[in-house]
Amino acid sequence: MSRILGIDPGLHITGWGIVDYNGFLLKHIDNGTIVSSSEEEIGSRLSHIFKKLSDIIEKYNPEEASIEDVFVNKNPFSSLKLGMARGTAICCVGVLGLKIHEYTPNKIKKSVVGTGHATKEQVLIMVQKLLSCGRVKLDAADALAVAVCHAHHKTLYTVKG
Amino acid sequence: MSRILGIDPGLHITGWGIVDYNGFLLKHIDNGTIVSSSEEEIGSRLSHIFKKLSDIIEKYNPEEASIEDVFVNKNPFSSLKLGMARGTAICCVGVLGLKIHEYTPNKIKKSVVGTGHATKEQVLIMVQKLLSCGRVKLDAADALAVAVCHAHHKTLYTVKG
Repeated sequence: MSRILGIDPGLHITGWGIVDYNGFLLKHIDNGTIVSSSEEEIGSRLSHIFKKLSDIIEKYNPEEASIEDVFVNKNPFSSLKLGMARGTAICCVGVLGLKIHEYTPNKIKKSVVGTGHATKEQVLIMVQKLLSCGRVKLDAADALAVAVCHAHHKTLYTVKG
Repeated sequence: MSRILGIDPGLHITGWGIVDYNGFLLKHIDNGTIVSSSEEEIGSRLSHIFKKLSDIIEKYNPEEASIEDVFVNKNPFSSLKLGMARGTAICCVGVLGLKIHEYTPNKIKKSVVGTGHATKEQVLIMVQKLLSCGRVKLDAADALAVAVCHAHHKTLYTVKG
């Protein structure tokens, strides 16, 4: 079994999910969200995300991490905010010595729903079904989806040699 | 004397500068740049910035940090990249327990050159003059400028009560 951490970063809500996999066999371990209040100053918000993610990595000890390779928002201000949360998550994973794998939203959706044009709700339903993990929050489902996507790609790559 | 760390974050080059101040009396302590290669993967680049900034904070033990409050680029992709470097710098400062102060480019230029429409070269020349610190790289000069800006604002605020 290999263990993967999936992350769906956001300044307000960062979703995370831990999945074990062995070939195409998947096992849900845990998932959740890290919430930071817009009333806090930016330094506190980002260090809160960093610390919580560090705690999760220390607790579950994943071997790798995966994250959505975002299509940037048309609004540069939103892109900057997303970039700050994403940068915090990626640097946290890097500082703790994990390799990060990036997957496009299309690849992630194809991996869990079978089509790159799936809605967020379809991703949620399929993640819950694939992992038999009960009800999951939307942001945590996105994080689990990117973990599942990595497990599938890693397995395909290994099978292909 | 209070000690301030100024940061000019960028994914390729992050400038930093340490300045001591007592009222309007400024003393240059050190400055430099953290360079990350575009050939490295994003996780290594951001954790490199995080670790180097942590080393600087541990070495010089500043009491506060200041950073430019960016005007976002028109290009959302550039904003995302800048956001990732900026997020890494801000979260590093936050994780190490320093408060971060943000200043607009206009405020910073006014503080060191006297006009909000100064060029990068004018900022460089004035920073070198104000701090008597010899030749400084452009990105390090921007970091020293934001440190000087904070020192001026803090002093004005204290004088005004």
